[in-house]
Amino acid sequence: MALDAWSIQIDRTSKLFNSLSDDQLKQEVASGRNSGTYLLGHLAAVHDALFPLLGVGEKLYPQLEEVFIKNPDKSGLPKPDTKTLRQCWMDVNKKLDQHFNSFTAEEWFQKHNAVSTSDFEKEPHRNRLNVLLNRTAHLANHLGQLTFLKEK
Amino acid sequence: MALDAWSIQIDRTSKLFNSLSDDQLKQEVASGRNSGTYLLGHLAAVHDALFPLLGVGEKLYPQLEEVFIKNPDKSGLPKPDTKTLRQCWMDVNKKLDQHFNSFTAEEWFQKHNAVSTSDFEKEPHRNRLNVLLNRTAHLANHLGQLTFLKEK
Repeated sequence: MALDAWSIQIDRTSKLFNSLSDDQLKQEVASGRNSGTYLLGHLAAVHDALFPLLGVGEKLYPQLEEVFIKNPDKSGLPKPDTKTLRQCWMDVNKKLDQHFNSFTAEEWFQKHNAVSTSDFEKEPHRNRLNVLLNRTAHLANHLGQLTFLKEK
Repeated sequence: MALDAWSIQIDRTSKLFNSLSDDQLKQEVASGRNSGTYLLGHLAAVHDALFPLLGVGEKLYPQLEEVFIKNPDKSGLPKPDTKTLRQCWMDVNKKLDQHFNSFTAEEWFQKHNAVSTSDFEKEPHRNRLNVLLNRTAHLANHLGQLTFLKEK
């Protein structure tokens, strides 16, 4: 069910990105706030970080972190073009999906890599499933903002 | 963990509402979009509907549905004042919290009231826990929008 909730948000977000032109994505979602392009890169980067966090491999696009996580939209840093970012978003989520669908129930309850073994013994909820729930909320949060890029 | 994810979003949203003045809440979250006041009423109404949906009682404020679910912000319908809506939000979530914390694991996996017994046999994921996951995403969605009411 948690995986369904994740997939629903991913599908809605992908549909929204696909429905928006590059020019629409360049707009700020609200006056003075992040652009759609920044949020596209931000979400791709945050999801890309799930591979090492969940212990299922390396990031596909480690270069996104500096621009889209460590720095804000108006950092002045050069950004990849929108076409590239769209591809990153799709690649990352497709590969995550493969891992997520292969996890057994037991594997979902294993610890993630940002918690030590001793802390995990005390706090067993700091597991992969919890990361999934948390990132679903994060995605939903930004999806709500991205919908403002649609025509009224 | 799902309940924690819900509570995190509720706490963040409540803190945000408490930090915003009535005047700030009256603003649109983005140009031409819903006002903070409407979203406050909308979230209170959607959460109020969880009592009958989860089979734990009647709505506390059934009058909210017409204005904040069935109709959009600019419906022209008279709205309760912001103070009243703030109270509705707190009352509904406080009472939900009591029910949620009393549910056993088994009770979370029981069917909700928008699914028939025969459909539930075929689709056992249509349970209370699933409603909780769904409403957490809904809340996160609007919380992301409401953050735009904060000063930059």
